[in-house]
Amino acid sequence: MSTTSHLTIDLDKGGMNTGHLIVSKGADSEALSLPVFSLNKGAGPRLLITGGCHGNELEGPSVARRIIDWLTGAQTCGRVIIVPELNPLAVQAWSRNTPIDGLNLNRVFPGRADGSVTERIADAISRLLVPMAETILDLHSFGPMWEFPPASTTHPIADADLMAKTLRMAEAFRFPMTLVWENDETPGMFDTFVQNLGKVFVCAELGGGTVGAEYLAIYEAGVRNALIALGLVEGKADHPTFRQQKSSQTLETLTSDWLRSPARGIFEPRCSVLDEVKQGDLIGILHPMNSLSAGSVDIRAPTTSIVCAVKSGLHVEANDGVALLGRPLNRRP
Amino acid sequence: MSTTSHLTIDLDKGGMNTGHLIVSKGADSEALSLPVFSLNKGAGPRLLITGGCHGNELEGPSVARRIIDWLTGAQTCGRVIIVPELNPLAVQAWSRNTPIDGLNLNRVFPGRADGSVTERIADAISRLLVPMAETILDLHSFGPMWEFPPASTTHPIADADLMAKTLRMAEAFRFPMTLVWENDETPGMFDTFVQNLGKVFVCAELGGGTVGAEYLAIYEAGVRNALIALGLVEGKADHPTFRQQKSSQTLETLTSDWLRSPARGIFEPRCSVLDEVKQGDLIGILHPMNSLSAGSVDIRAPTTSIVCAVKSGLHVEANDGVALLGRPLNRRP
Repeated sequence: MSTTSHLTIDLDKGGMNTGHLIVSKGADSEALSLPVFSLNKGAGPRLLITGGCHGNELEGPSVARRIIDWLTGAQTCGRVIIVPELNPLAVQAWSRNTPIDGLNLNRVFPGRADGSVTERIADAISRLLVPMAETILDLHSFGPMWEFPPASTTHPIADADLMAKTLRMAEAFRFPMTLVWENDETPGMFDTFVQNLGKVFVCAELGGGTVGAEYLAIYEAGVRNALIALGLVEGKADHPTFRQQKSSQTLETLTSDWLRSPARGIFEPRCSVLDEVKQGDLIGILHPMNSLSAGSVDIRAPTTSIVCAVKSGLHVEANDGVALLGRPLNRRP
Repeated sequence: MSTTSHLTIDLDKGGMNTGHLIVSKGADSEALSLPVFSLNKGAGPRLLITGGCHGNELEGPSVARRIIDWLTGAQTCGRVIIVPELNPLAVQAWSRNTPIDGLNLNRVFPGRADGSVTERIADAISRLLVPMAETILDLHSFGPMWEFPPASTTHPIADADLMAKTLRMAEAFRFPMTLVWENDETPGMFDTFVQNLGKVFVCAELGGGTVGAEYLAIYEAGVRNALIALGLVEGKADHPTFRQQKSSQTLETLTSDWLRSPARGIFEPRCSVLDEVKQGDLIGILHPMNSLSAGSVDIRAPTTSIVCAVKSGLHVEANDGVALLGRPLNRRP
């Protein structure tokens, strides 16, 4: 048997086919077998959907499997490849990074065939799956430490044409929030690697906090909307209902829009996501744990903005991000 | 200076006083200084409020500090001692147990003066604070891995009179759910230790999942209701609003009411807390991670019941609890 990473599935075969992406063994681990689902209805858009890049963001794996069930009856053309769990080692540990080598899969792309296990996963995806699609939807979330609305996100892209195509794809989810998110920590990201190939990549940050039934239903509806917009399925897109409302807004946020904790202590959130805040409104309170009285510190909005993300109540270090603010996207012509 | 655990605060002094519970140093750690707040308005009920027993249940510490602010103006009689964070080491690590010795503070009561650090914390609380109150409210939650409604809970107590007094105290919060919860894992619990002294102990399990602003407001309202019921504050209790409703129900659940995962894999919740389910209704789905198709397993309600808790979507082992079901309390005469 081959010891290099390979696929055990024929992606050109018609209909629904299943197999594995085998990630080669290395000094630090045995080979991994990642389930792969191919739904092939011939000519048309070629899409790759991935989940479980970070092991504590489990909206993606569940929604990916729901979409497999749905597509089996609904797909009319094109090919969709779905990998529900990119990083089974992190998923089993409920951790962002891979426990074996401590690496963040979303910072090591395109990976290395002779690297540690996380780098070998990235290499197998980059070489064997990314070439098979023009559009990639990577189903992330903000994880258990944040409140975050159902949202699709993209980072700013220098190529204006690709930026416009990517934004259209992100807005097709019709989630309560579409977010264009400046991030200065992009080297090695799956996004950047794929976008540099000229392909459309939407990194859905499907929510945060509890992975519950209500949110999962919204996520599934959003991903269905995206597949309808791509033309893979016939149907009519609809806004999912979030907090008794059916509405969407497209926001942007800069690296300077992070509110950070002024000290070490317990962060107490005092706002919710999608709240509109004015300068001076209370975002949260920081309680230094050793303080006996007046030590609590108010954290206030520096300017009129919309709350994109707010940290769950937990212990934070000085300078940790506790909220991400944004504003309506300024669409350049 | 004394090397045994002690208080740096005079609890008999009138008004608001602050100081520390010093937990003695030992072979495994330096001494700890836990902030203690005493609000003393003379004769009347004597109450102890504690939070932060488990370090990933941070509703309690925030609500405890809110109650300090509120009581400062509102209290009319009696004495309230508040310790927002019982286990600062676990809080800083966002972990249920203490990282240094791996122990669960809520399983080592009454502790040991010469034990490891978790046992020394329990010993200091047991000897120095528990004797100062007849009623104890310990502010827990279900933590980040669960969806759980704002609720006050107690375990069944053999002494019928103490059971009735404890249940009245639990219901005084007017939370959406009051839960009498059979638990066969009681040795070393703070609850059991205090109840064996004939005192009232309510272990509020204030929620689960994200520690967000909306839930924190409900929790604070519930704890205020309890303090009004005790007569420490004059005022009128009101049901907090949860999901657009103001209602309360008292449920009971048995150890046999846990639904457990049939296998290892990703649990996908398909119901929400306080849902009424009938026999055969879908509670969740278990996706074995290596399965390629028909491997997903439905987890269904065995009987008509109400969902008290449901696990967040995450990787579980075979036999892990994924939902806790209950039914209206059968009040024995």
